[in-house]
Amino acid sequence: MNSVALAFLSAGFGAGLAVLGAGLGIGKLAAAALEGSARQPTAAGDIRTSMIIAAALIEGVTLFAIVVCVLLAIKT
Amino acid sequence: MNSVALAFLSAGFGAGLAVLGAGLGIGKLAAAALEGSARQPTAAGDIRTSMIIAAALIEGVTLFAIVVCVLLAIKT
Amino acid sequence: MNSVALAFLSAGFGAGLAVLGAGLGIGKLAAAALEGSARQPTAAGDIRTSMIIAAALIEGVTLFAIVVCVLLAIKT
Amino acid sequence: MNSVALAFLSAGFGAGLAVLGAGLGIGKLAAAALEGSARQPTAAGDIRTSMIIAAALIEGVTLFAIVVCVLLAIKT
Amino acid sequence: MNSVALAFLSAGFGAGLAVLGAGLGIGKLAAAALEGSARQPTAAGDIRTSMIIAAALIEGVTLFAIVVCVLLAIKT
Amino acid sequence: MNSVALAFLSAGFGAGLAVLGAGLGIGKLAAAALEGSARQPTAAGDIRTSMIIAAALIEGVTLFAIVVCVLLAIKT
Amino acid sequence: MNSVALAFLSAGFGAGLAVLGAGLGIGKLAAAALEGSARQPTAAGDIRTSMIIAAALIEGVTLFAIVVCVLLAIKT
Amino acid sequence: MNSVALAFLSAGFGAGLAVLGAGLGIGKLAAAALEGSARQPTAAGDIRTSMIIAAALIEGVTLFAIVVCVLLAIKT
Amino acid sequence: MNSVALAFLSAGFGAGLAVLGAGLGIGKLAAAALEGSARQPTAAGDIRTSMIIAAALIEGVTLFAIVVCVLLAIKT
Amino acid sequence: MNSVALAFLSAGFGAGLAVLGAGLGIGKLAAAALEGSARQPTAAGDIRTSMIIAAALIEGVTLFAIVVCVLLAIKT
Amino acid sequence: MNSVALAFLSAGFGAGLAVLGAGLGIGKLAAAALEGSARQPTAAGDIRTSMIIAAALIEGVTLFAIVVCVLLAIKT
Amino acid sequence: MNSVALAFLSAGFGAGLAVLGAGLGIGKLAAAALEGSARQPTAAGDIRTSMIIAAALIEGVTLFAIVVCVLLAIKT
Amino acid sequence: MNSVALAFLSAGFGAGLAVLGAGLGIGKLAAAALEGSARQPTAAGDIRTSMIIAAALIEGVTLFAIVVCVLLAIKT
Amino acid sequence: MNSVALAFLSAGFGAGLAVLGAGLGIGKLAAAALEGSARQPTAAGDIRTSMIIAAALIEGVTLFAIVVCVLLAIKT
Repeated sequence: MNSVALAFLSAGFGAGLAVLGAGLGIGKLAAAALEGSARQPTAAGDIRTSMIIAAALIEGVTLFAIVVCVLLAIKT
Repeated sequence: MNSVALAFLSAGFGAGLAVLGAGLGIGKLAAAALEGSARQPTAAGDIRTSMIIAAALIEGVTLFAIVVCVLLAIKT
Repeated sequence: MNSVALAFLSAGFGAGLAVLGAGLGIGKLAAAALEGSARQPTAAGDIRTSMIIAAALIEGVTLFAIVVCVLLAIKT
Repeated sequence: MNSVALAFLSAGFGAGLAVLGAGLGIGKLAAAALEGSARQPTAAGDIRTSMIIAAALIEGVTLFAIVVCVLLAIKT
Repeated sequence: MNSVALAFLSAGFGAGLAVLGAGLGIGKLAAAALEGSARQPTAAGDIRTSMIIAAALIEGVTLFAIVVCVLLAIKT
Repeated sequence: MNSVALAFLSAGFGAGLAVLGAGLGIGKLAAAALEGSARQPTAAGDIRTSMIIAAALIEGVTLFAIVVCVLLAIKT
Repeated sequence: MNSVALAFLSAGFGAGLAVLGAGLGIGKLAAAALEGSARQPTAAGDIRTSMIIAAALIEGVTLFAIVVCVLLAIKT
Repeated sequence: MNSVALAFLSAGFGAGLAVLGAGLGIGKLAAAALEGSARQPTAAGDIRTSMIIAAALIEGVTLFAIVVCVLLAIKT
Repeated sequence: MNSVALAFLSAGFGAGLAVLGAGLGIGKLAAAALEGSARQPTAAGDIRTSMIIAAALIEGVTLFAIVVCVLLAIKT
Repeated sequence: MNSVALAFLSAGFGAGLAVLGAGLGIGKLAAAALEGSARQPTAAGDIRTSMIIAAALIEGVTLFAIVVCVLLAIKT
Repeated sequence: MNSVALAFLSAGFGAGLAVLGAGLGIGKLAAAALEGSARQPTAAGDIRTSMIIAAALIEGVTLFAIVVCVLLAIKT
Repeated sequence: MNSVALAFLSAGFGAGLAVLGAGLGIGKLAAAALEGSARQPTAAGDIRTSMIIAAALIEGVTLFAIVVCVLLAIKT
Repeated sequence: MNSVALAFLSAGFGAGLAVLGAGLGIGKLAAAALEGSARQPTAAGDIRTSMIIAAALIEGVTLFAIVVCVLLAIKT
Repeated sequence: MNSVALAFLSAGFGAGLAVLGAGLGIGKLAAAALEGSARQPTAAGDIRTSMIIAAALIEGVTLFAIVVCVLLAIKT
């Protein structure tokens, strides 16, 4: 077993775990945003802006981690 | 065991974990959206738009991760 | 142990994990939809439409992941 | 250990995990449907229709995953 | 270790996991059905019918999965 | 290690997991039944009948799974 | 390592898991029964009868599983 | 590694798991009993009787499982 | 690796798991007892008696399991 | 690997698990005691006495288990 | 297996775990921020500022950890 | 691999697990103490005393366990 | 496998676990701070100060742990 | 594999687990403190003092555990 094998192994698992975290996190905050919009439809635009800012913070680290995984997946 | 074997191993598990996260996340936010629609039917269109935006954010990273898994699954 | 063996291994587990996520996610959002229908029977049609859209988003990534698993399961 | 052995291994576990997800998901949405029926007996027919549609969505991916497992279980 | 050994291994675990899912799912929906019956005794018959339909959906995939396990357990 | 060894291994674990699921499921629905009986003592007979039907559905798959385990435990 | 060794291994773990499930299940339903008795002391006898019936259903499969474990523990 | 070694291994773990289940179960039902006693001090004797009956049901299977573990621990 | 090694291994883990269960169980019931005492200071003596009886039931199986572990830890 | 090595291994893990259980248990009951004291400051002395008795029951088995671990840690 | 292989292994898993923590944490606090904004739209600007400060504290350690992972992923 | 290696292994993990338990336990009771102080500022001194007593009980076993770990970490 | 390999392994996992804890902890306290700010906008400055103090306590141990991981990651 | 390798392994994991516990614990108590401050701004100073005392108790054992990990990480 050469060292590239384990790089491939961690690439798939790492991407899966990262998406698990991102899915749970964005799901939780978007659920709160949607409940808030339903309770106060007049503030829906402001809440949607905040939701996208917060989701972008999670997307950032997630994409960074997946880039690390891609870096590992394309080793030869 | 050559290095492709572990690539195959992580491809399947990674895709499974990614869908686990996406399923939980979209399930949670869609549940909030549906509860909100039932509570305020007049705001249902606006809530559905927000729901699809938020779900698209999760779908994006999920597809990115599954593409990494496909990249690993088609190694030879 | 040749590399196909681990492909088979991950095919079964990956499909199982993907269905686990899809089951939990669709179960959660459908529960919210059914509660909403019971609370406001007049909005049941609109809620059912939203439910099917949201469930389709989860079904999409789930089927994508299972196709990856089939891809692994039919290696020779 | 030849490659068929691991195919058998993942067939059983994968089927088990898939049923775990399907059981939890259908259990959750059916619980909501039954509570809704008890709260509004007049809407019971409509709720039962929605319940079967949502359960069918989960059954679909579950059967797809178990078919993958059968595919693995009958390798020789 | 020949390939039948791992088939036996996954047969037992798979059956256990499948029953775990079925037990949790049927337990959850039956709990909701029993609470509903206690709250509205007049609708008990209708609720019991829905309960058996929903439980049958879970029983179906569970038995399918256990049949896969039996298929693995009787390999020689 | 011959193939019977792993059959023995999975027999014990599988039986344990199956009872775990059955215990949790029957425990949950019986709890709901007992709470319902305490809230409406006049409907206790009807609730007990539903409880036994639902518990029987879980017992069925549990016994089926344990029979698979016995099948594995008595291999020679 | 002969095949009896793994039989011994699974005997202990299986018995432990089975008791884990039985303990959680009986604990949950007995808690509901005791709360019900405290809320309606006049129905305490009827609730205790139902509690013992439900607990017996769990005890049955638990003892069946432990008998499988004993079967494995006394192999030679 | 002879077969007695794994018997010792499972003896300790099995006893630990069994006590884990018994502790959680008796803890849950006794908590309900104590809350009930505090709410209705006049029914404390009847509740304590029910508590000991239910706890005895859990103690029974726990001791049975630990006896299996002792059986494994004294192999030579 | 002789058979005593695994006896030592399971002794430590088993004792840890047993205390984990006992800690959670006694913690839960004592919390209920203390809440009950704070709500009805006049019944504090009766509640403390019940608490010690219930805790003794857990202590009994815990000590039994730890004795099994000591039995394993002093093998030579 | 001689048998002392695994004794050392289980000593550390066992002590960690035992403290995990003790921490969770004492934390839970002390939280209840502190809430009770804040709700009824006049009964604070009586509650503190009960808290120390219950905590002592957990401390007892924890120390017993750690002594088993020390017994394993000082093997030579 | 040389030492770089395990560096690759931990790089992917570590990045995945870090994003899991960051996703859950930012998701939780952003959910609270969005609920707060919906309840008091006049304080939305102040809440958004606090949200970004708190999220930045999590982003900091997350990026630090992913940099460690990159450090491991680019070893040769 | 000599026996000291596993002693080092368990030293780190054991200390980590012990702190995990202590952190969760003290965190839970201190949270209750702080809520109690905020609800009744006049009893804050008495609650703080009880909090330190209860925390000391957890600190005691934690330090005992970490001392066991240090004992393992300084073996040569 | 030389000893540096396992140092690399633990560096990545340790950093991931540390960030998992820090993310959950800071996320929980910041959520409470943001809810508090939304409920009492006049006390927002004081709450933000307390939030940063508490977050700094977690950041401290997290950075300490990551420094240990860096120490391990740069071994040669 | 010499004994230092496992020392390095446990150093990273142990530090990660310790920070996980500390993060969860301090996060929980600080959340309670911040909620208390928001509910009674006049008692904010007293609550902040208690919060720092309780956090210090957790920090103490955490730092002790990380020092053990450093002790393991600098072995040669």
